[in-house]
Amino acid sequence: MVISIYLCKGYFCIVRFIYYKKIMKADIGLIGLAVMGENLALNMENKGYTVAVYNRSVLGEEGIVDRFINGRGKNKKFIGTHSIEQLVQSVTSPRKIMMMVKSGSPVDELIEQLLPYLSQGDVIIDGGNSDFHDTDRRVKSLEEKGLYFVGTGISGGEEGALHGPSIMPGGSVEAWPIVKDIFQNISAKIDDGSPCCEWMGSGSAGHFVKTVHNGIEYGDMQLIAESYALMKHRMGLDNDHLAQIFEDWNKGELSSFLIQITAQIFRYREADGSPLIDHILDVAGQKGTGKWSAITALNESNPMTLITEAVHARSLSALINDRMKASEIYPDTPKQGTSLAVEDIRQALYAAKIVSYAQGFALMYSASQHYGWTLNLGAIARIWRNGCIIRSTFLQKITNAYLENTNLENLLFDPFFASQIKASLASWRKVVADGLMSGIPLPAMSAALTYFDGLRTLHLPTNLIQAQRDFFGAHTYERTDTIRGKFFHTNWTGKGGDTASGTYNA
Amino acid sequence: MVISIYLCKGYFCIVRFIYYKKIMKADIGLIGLAVMGENLALNMENKGYTVAVYNRSVLGEEGIVDRFINGRGKNKKFIGTHSIEQLVQSVTSPRKIMMMVKSGSPVDELIEQLLPYLSQGDVIIDGGNSDFHDTDRRVKSLEEKGLYFVGTGISGGEEGALHGPSIMPGGSVEAWPIVKDIFQNISAKIDDGSPCCEWMGSGSAGHFVKTVHNGIEYGDMQLIAESYALMKHRMGLDNDHLAQIFEDWNKGELSSFLIQITAQIFRYREADGSPLIDHILDVAGQKGTGKWSAITALNESNPMTLITEAVHARSLSALINDRMKASEIYPDTPKQGTSLAVEDIRQALYAAKIVSYAQGFALMYSASQHYGWTLNLGAIARIWRNGCIIRSTFLQKITNAYLENTNLENLLFDPFFASQIKASLASWRKVVADGLMSGIPLPAMSAALTYFDGLRTLHLPTNLIQAQRDFFGAHTYERTDTIRGKFFHTNWTGKGGDTASGTYNA
Repeated sequence: MVISIYLCKGYFCIVRFIYYKKIMKADIGLIGLAVMGENLALNMENKGYTVAVYNRSVLGEEGIVDRFINGRGKNKKFIGTHSIEQLVQSVTSPRKIMMMVKSGSPVDELIEQLLPYLSQGDVIIDGGNSDFHDTDRRVKSLEEKGLYFVGTGISGGEEGALHGPSIMPGGSVEAWPIVKDIFQNISAKIDDGSPCCEWMGSGSAGHFVKTVHNGIEYGDMQLIAESYALMKHRMGLDNDHLAQIFEDWNKGELSSFLIQITAQIFRYREADGSPLIDHILDVAGQKGTGKWSAITALNESNPMTLITEAVHARSLSALINDRMKASEIYPDTPKQGTSLAVEDIRQALYAAKIVSYAQGFALMYSASQHYGWTLNLGAIARIWRNGCIIRSTFLQKITNAYLENTNLENLLFDPFFASQIKASLASWRKVVADGLMSGIPLPAMSAALTYFDGLRTLHLPTNLIQAQRDFFGAHTYERTDTIRGKFFHTNWTGKGGDTASGTYNA
Repeated sequence: MVISIYLCKGYFCIVRFIYYKKIMKADIGLIGLAVMGENLALNMENKGYTVAVYNRSVLGEEGIVDRFINGRGKNKKFIGTHSIEQLVQSVTSPRKIMMMVKSGSPVDELIEQLLPYLSQGDVIIDGGNSDFHDTDRRVKSLEEKGLYFVGTGISGGEEGALHGPSIMPGGSVEAWPIVKDIFQNISAKIDDGSPCCEWMGSGSAGHFVKTVHNGIEYGDMQLIAESYALMKHRMGLDNDHLAQIFEDWNKGELSSFLIQITAQIFRYREADGSPLIDHILDVAGQKGTGKWSAITALNESNPMTLITEAVHARSLSALINDRMKASEIYPDTPKQGTSLAVEDIRQALYAAKIVSYAQGFALMYSASQHYGWTLNLGAIARIWRNGCIIRSTFLQKITNAYLENTNLENLLFDPFFASQIKASLASWRKVVADGLMSGIPLPAMSAALTYFDGLRTLHLPTNLIQAQRDFFGAHTYERTDTIRGKFFHTNWTGKGGDTASGTYNA
């Protein structure tokens, strides 16, 4: 309501009352009301933001939006909209339109639908798990149209989305001041109150960092599973005992969300009192983000072996028909007793976890140079401290390592982590050898160890591979007794040519 | 010269002599005269074919073609051409134009340049190491234009190209009768005279098979290198001794080209009498085909772990600055003596090699179903028996396995290979454990063992991973006490929702 008072001619006034329906504008528009999107919207509203929401109707005419507005969103600052146009017009300029939709073509389709209604300086945000190459393309294409694009990683599952996730935005640098306030407000906070959200860098930096995050998540989960296999099958521990062990571990160096929920999982009983974990089928699902992480490492020629093995371990678990056949052909033989102690397994898990993070951060280190992102690796470890699935106290040690040396090529070179690895090494070797000898598959723990030994080995047998490649393909080799970058070819048999092989030319 | 005799009017004849320059037409056109292309052209000519050759000039005006025609191609049935048009016009219809050029955009550019001069039914052949997705696209696009496209793997290096490679063609089915004769003639032969060239299947089947072949090559080479590392660093054997061992191994189950050249490499001495192998830098190169193989397996959710580790091992070897740093921080400690015998190492190499081929063939098995190629896995093993880098007697056992059972999901289920694995298992475990305990990196041998144990383990700890995924992301799980395909979600904490997570919807 507006009251306009026009003073005029002495005591007489014309008072004009104008009633109008207040047009509420939203701070941000959100597309996609599956669990993650819905929870993120509720989180934003809870922090004081008005959120316009839109979802393509799949529950009959305008079903999902109305169900939300009349359900979890009832009596809250939400604006339900029923078209892309209405959504866009409900948001204040410069508009922030966030997509929480399936990655791939749905993102491109939505961008196309949004374009006619957006104005210069508006920001489209993709909060899904997009392939970082797609994000690069979208940033470029939208900036050419005078718009901004932010590709952001969001980790924390549905709980995190609701109460505070870890957020990894990157893309159009000009968009950061526009989205910073809302992103940092809804993100998780660490002990000192600082938000688990920082600007990652230009282009696809945000989605790249999320890709590595998800790979690390696969690695952490696989390492915990391998520890479980050893304690269950080698040491014969029951679920209560396992729960106690993980509760203990959660008080020390391994303290983390995944260790904590693992204890809770072992404690969980079904209605009939039996442990639920024993009724769960050992066939793992995956949504592709671990796979992307592994593929990215291969494409960058970066030996991120542990995470790759963790991804393969899930795929292997899914071959259940093959596994049944193989278990008949190659049955378990009676195992020798083990001298392993729970503390050995904890040390092996800890050392392998250090290697996993060392590999993931080494990939970010080299990719950052390759793509020119100038990733702040210490800040990345810090925003993972809370909100996300891999949150842990351990990450503070990584932040510390990069505070000591911002140009650290590999975490294994940091004095603190080196001391930890050295202290764990004997147990780690013992545990992996025990698993290999007794037939307990430990693909991640052993990949970590072969990587560690490969990295610290000054003379690898790769000279033989170079000799073979030169023998059969004239691919040339370098020598130990001359400077790097000089390539030699040997006519090994006296029959082949003396010509070195180049790349094919047309 | 043609003599036409027109008989007329009794004894008088008009005899007409027509002289003309014989216009020689080629059986095939070949583009790209780097080592592989040049040797392949010489191989074709040697088998009686006339070959038109073309190469984009890079040695000054028409340099490369003329150099070849006046050099290795002198007085042979070659037609040197100096433009794409001239090349195409030199070849008989239906034309076969083969490209031996760098994969990627050069192939597409050449196809564009060829198109204006080709006629319906002509065949373009890509003999490079193309990404199989590109081949699929090219087959489709050229068939729409009434042309045929063949993407063919060719293995054997420069020697193989000259004397008989292994050839893996696939693509337009109609093209097979057109190229079959020449391809099978120039290919290597096995003992019974049959050619190392068979039709792989439609679309990109040929390049896919070559991709897996190259991955297996990486695996074989890495396994040999790991055996070398153990014998050198654990057993202290010198190069002469190593040469003798590989010569012995080449007489048995491991008999293969790579084992044979490894022996020759250890025998090779430089002019000053010192072993060349000791002067070669341990930094491996790679041209990307092993990487593609590993990426393909990840994309197919197929746990091809050994080859992936072999690719990563090459990348790790290239991080020589990091390796030097790590070797200072984590120096070698004095090693305990070893009880390993050479025969243990041979058994470990043999078992791991079986796993490597089992993984590669399992990938082809599932990809064949996925893409509808109906790959003949026994025939693939047979055409690899000679000509290519991985040629071996071992491959005959694989052919036999598929003759026994054309629907064998995994070579490890074949009775022969099962017996071999069982006989080697104790040595294999001992060798890998020795490497892990003593700090010798054996990434491929140990990845093979963890895969083997993972496959034959009926109860993997993956149930815990499923519990974790359901705990933090409501990703649901299957149960052991109900049928497959039913998915459950548990509200683990009593705080989260009861709603299972779906994929995002817009």
